[in-house]
Amino acid sequence: MLETTIAAIQPPDESAMADARELHGRLTKPAGSLGALEELSVRLAGLAGACPPPLPEPAAVAIFAGDHGVHAQGVTPWPQEVTGQMIGNFLAGGAVVNAFARQAGASVTVVDVGVATPLPAGPAQPAAETSGPVVLDPSSPVVLDPSTPRLVAASVRRGTRDLAVTAALTRDEARAAVQTGIRIADELIDAGAAILLTGDMGIGNTTPAAALIAAFTGADPLDATGRGTGVDDPTYARKVAVVRAALARHAPDPADPLGVLAAVGGLEHAALAGLILGAAARRTPVLLDGVIAVSAALAAAAFAPDAVSAMVAGHRSAEPGATVALRHLGLDPLIDLGLRLGEGTGALLALPVVTGAVRVLHEVATFDSAGVAEK
Amino acid sequence: MLETTIAAIQPPDESAMADARELHGRLTKPAGSLGALEELSVRLAGLAGACPPPLPEPAAVAIFAGDHGVHAQGVTPWPQEVTGQMIGNFLAGGAVVNAFARQAGASVTVVDVGVATPLPAGPAQPAAETSGPVVLDPSSPVVLDPSTPRLVAASVRRGTRDLAVTAALTRDEARAAVQTGIRIADELIDAGAAILLTGDMGIGNTTPAAALIAAFTGADPLDATGRGTGVDDPTYARKVAVVRAALARHAPDPADPLGVLAAVGGLEHAALAGLILGAAARRTPVLLDGVIAVSAALAAAAFAPDAVSAMVAGHRSAEPGATVALRHLGLDPLIDLGLRLGEGTGALLALPVVTGAVRVLHEVATFDSAGVAEK
Repeated sequence: MLETTIAAIQPPDESAMADARELHGRLTKPAGSLGALEELSVRLAGLAGACPPPLPEPAAVAIFAGDHGVHAQGVTPWPQEVTGQMIGNFLAGGAVVNAFARQAGASVTVVDVGVATPLPAGPAQPAAETSGPVVLDPSSPVVLDPSTPRLVAASVRRGTRDLAVTAALTRDEARAAVQTGIRIADELIDAGAAILLTGDMGIGNTTPAAALIAAFTGADPLDATGRGTGVDDPTYARKVAVVRAALARHAPDPADPLGVLAAVGGLEHAALAGLILGAAARRTPVLLDGVIAVSAALAAAAFAPDAVSAMVAGHRSAEPGATVALRHLGLDPLIDLGLRLGEGTGALLALPVVTGAVRVLHEVATFDSAGVAEK
Repeated sequence: MLETTIAAIQPPDESAMADARELHGRLTKPAGSLGALEELSVRLAGLAGACPPPLPEPAAVAIFAGDHGVHAQGVTPWPQEVTGQMIGNFLAGGAVVNAFARQAGASVTVVDVGVATPLPAGPAQPAAETSGPVVLDPSSPVVLDPSTPRLVAASVRRGTRDLAVTAALTRDEARAAVQTGIRIADELIDAGAAILLTGDMGIGNTTPAAALIAAFTGADPLDATGRGTGVDDPTYARKVAVVRAALARHAPDPADPLGVLAAVGGLEHAALAGLILGAAARRTPVLLDGVIAVSAALAAAAFAPDAVSAMVAGHRSAEPGATVALRHLGLDPLIDLGLRLGEGTGALLALPVVTGAVRVLHEVATFDSAGVAEK
């Protein structure tokens, strides 16, 4: 499944891109006056193989959640239980990602790929025990409903192993998580999603993200590692040291992305890499959120360089590793407001910019049709 | 009217701002993780005098249109007729501002404060002659309808005089345009608008904008002047020379904003200054578009320094003068994508960010209410 997905990813359609550039020159605005939106719309035409490309509606956020054995190293002050508690918050509609998704009209799918603690009951089953995940009937069709967050139970294992001590995952576990991401991409696109947005939840997950970024880009761990939720100086120093030691111990090979994900990744990072590959194989854009997303995007690009054509960088996370990764991918983010929340919030803020960029090619009059003189 | 509006502008409510900061600390997200959105929501609480501040819905774009005597100096390759032709495009819904406004659910009001040429008929009167402006019955109530752009005929004069030769406006003309802006702000807010977005149209209007920015900030004309729609090197050199000569000729006093607007401004710049003052007096946020808007915002701040509390910088225009003005106002823009179109397009792209920032304070669960542990 991973191999067939990678094989299906094609380079952009140069002819559709040329058509989009030519159309931009005829619309009632000075040439180039929409700045980065023009090039974005050209890229999306190339991805879709059509000018104009389809409007990115409806949009679907996929939040992959997992826990991390490296939590034991004291890389974050937050208890591991918060990962599962936040899933409860997502399903109840109380998190920032829910507020932004409601505003954008995007559906929210939460995927448990490896949460360590039992999940709380969601609002759909208020009387249920809190001992197991809330999950829709897997035989029912996927419906993109912005008003009801959905949980998919797809746990590969209850959290990774401690990457400071051993490989976080086996290759088979990493592959299973990547393939879960591909499957979610397919399900959401089959259900009608015209753009996928990456989300993530996992206490401690900026540590494996930093390790992935250092492994794929060659950056020094000090430049790839940030303060995550805002850790203090001793915790930050410990975090950098953990990343540095893990890279030395595992010596991950960036040409072997499955090996890198297994050695120093997380289950949500692996699944996000799969989501990106799945979207790219379906010529559907995937709007990247923050540092977790871009670390996963590096893995996706290592699997299939042409997958970058499907990526739109939603925002520049405050995490320094995000900028290192975006530079490596050659992507400029749409929003740069110092966010470091994750969940998909930065991608959701950027969604209207993507939609606007495409809408211009659909709706704006030409000089000819509007009877406006040119210079 | 101008004086009473200025007198009504109050400083922000520190207590509401403290409430918003305190609430942010209890919401289910790491403290500070929403970056600039948190401070924006605090500012809007201070403006409204309430926490949470009202959601900025519905939104109303006001596009002020005017022509410029300085067009005779060859500062732009576009014919002056394009100003009126683009009004026809706005009323027909064919411009980029229309596409973005439809997407954002914002109404569009086009205000002729000084277009030189006869306006074309809009779509509301397809059989009408093209000899006069299309205008709604002034006795009918203002309705904010995102599907139907509206034209308000409020021409002060058919274009400014050439600021390279004489004062662009008399003080009375500048005052009339400012007061038109105040009146439009009042009408839109009375009709229910919870946020105003600045728009502009006027071939040649980046030249007076550069002169205003240089006059109010003390910047050198070379740093305040940009290439507008994308002029070539000789035109750019001429434009800088025109701005430099105008400042030398008129020696505008930044402590006399009406005098500055009259000497080197434009009718749409003056009206936008009025719109901003009118919004500030009503404690209603005003989302600034590009270089024309921020040059007008400098005038508004010179009239009433507390008006800055009502301003939200939508985007950083590619025009260098915009950055000079934003720095002077102490405002950080929300979007920075190299746009230089005007019309209100950059403000509309930023609107979902503003709405999202406020929505967080309305909708996100607290750690207590969601049962999520803190660090």
